[in-house]
Amino acid sequence: LVLTLVLAESSIELVPREIVKHPAVLNWARRKKKDPGQLILDQTYHYPAMKKLGVDPQRGRPDISHLCLLAALGSPLNLNGELSCLVHTRDNKLVRVDPKTRLPRNTDRFVALLEQLYEQGAVPKNGPHLLSLEHASLGSLVSAVDSDSVVALTTQGKSMPMHAVADELARRRKPLLLVGGFSGGHFSKQALGLAKEAYKIDRRGLDASTVVARAVYDYERAIGIGEA
Amino acid sequence: LVLTLVLAESSIELVPREIVKHPAVLNWARRKKKDPGQLILDQTYHYPAMKKLGVDPQRGRPDISHLCLLAALGSPLNLNGELSCLVHTRDNKLVRVDPKTRLPRNTDRFVALLEQLYEQGAVPKNGPHLLSLEHASLGSLVSAVDSDSVVALTTQGKSMPMHAVADELARRRKPLLLVGGFSGGHFSKQALGLAKEAYKIDRRGLDASTVVARAVYDYERAIGIGEA
Repeated sequence: LVLTLVLAESSIELVPREIVKHPAVLNWARRKKKDPGQLILDQTYHYPAMKKLGVDPQRGRPDISHLCLLAALGSPLNLNGELSCLVHTRDNKLVRVDPKTRLPRNTDRFVALLEQLYEQGAVPKNGPHLLSLEHASLGSLVSAVDSDSVVALTTQGKSMPMHAVADELARRRKPLLLVGGFSGGHFSKQALGLAKEAYKIDRRGLDASTVVARAVYDYERAIGIGEA
Repeated sequence: LVLTLVLAESSIELVPREIVKHPAVLNWARRKKKDPGQLILDQTYHYPAMKKLGVDPQRGRPDISHLCLLAALGSPLNLNGELSCLVHTRDNKLVRVDPKTRLPRNTDRFVALLEQLYEQGAVPKNGPHLLSLEHASLGSLVSAVDSDSVVALTTQGKSMPMHAVADELARRRKPLLLVGGFSGGHFSKQALGLAKEAYKIDRRGLDASTVVARAVYDYERAIGIGEA
């Protein structure tokens, strides 16, 4: 009864070539003692460069995946070993997250961990990996999970309360849930096309981490765990 | 039907005098261009100083309140104007949070905001305050809310699923929920004594932000909002 949660098209990527020589990026690289091309794009610190050079302001939001992962990994569902978390990024990388991973709570420390991951391909580099990185499109990832029910949560979907969606998921053999790891936008048509069903769980767009927290909690209740 | 959520005895405080001259603190102060005594204690950066000088490692966790506030402020309950969030700290400060506040997602930016708040007493300093700071014990705060039902969530309480606790809260005129804004410890006896009831919502200790997310969601469902 493992639920697969995929944060799809997440706003995680290395600093793009266009802004790699901008002073805001160079300063940050110097401070972190890294090559500018090894930095994860982060709106918090690179916004001036992104704005000046016309990089989409929705990009560079690793904090969104961070908050989603903290919500997912800290849930009783995950602590019970019944949740599998994957992060798919907008540039088609796939981050596998070991359920036992205890992520740093500080955003900058999480981003530093991502930078290490992009450099090494895995963290820790030797021994059992807590995080590992590979190249994979969302399509190939979804095929590999071999789910009998791919469900996307999006304000473009049909209205249904989350607990009803969770009841549906709980009836499937291998449910896969897609939540967008971005802010203020929509899934690409391609991504949305991979889902058999798409639901809107609130009339407003909620933060991705709020969606994840609610989805996991309702799924727990649907399969009957998490009671004291 | 406003729910008052109090993050109680939260691990937020200025750097204590004992460690103010430690190199780890001085370096950090220099980098932030602040006086060391104006810094918020933060385990992420001050751990070596805390360890060396025997400061309780549970202290200095502003990230916990940060994650709780993000979960609370992003909820439909709050967006509907039916949630009031207060942060009480272990040194008896009280942070009032305007429901419309959009907090930074980055931990260090949030901590910088707290430093500004401790310096100025309010943020922004002039005009309507999004955050304001005063001195108040948890007892005086609870009295001021004039709740007919003060409920604490703690692993020391009686087992009850969160949705059942929420159903109870929804029947009260002015419910007040206490969640510990700390990690790996318990409420003080004094704090626990302020609650009329105390419940354990999971057999494990969950992250404070997970508790907040679930409490708010279940309260929404108990009062019948949040459906798509």
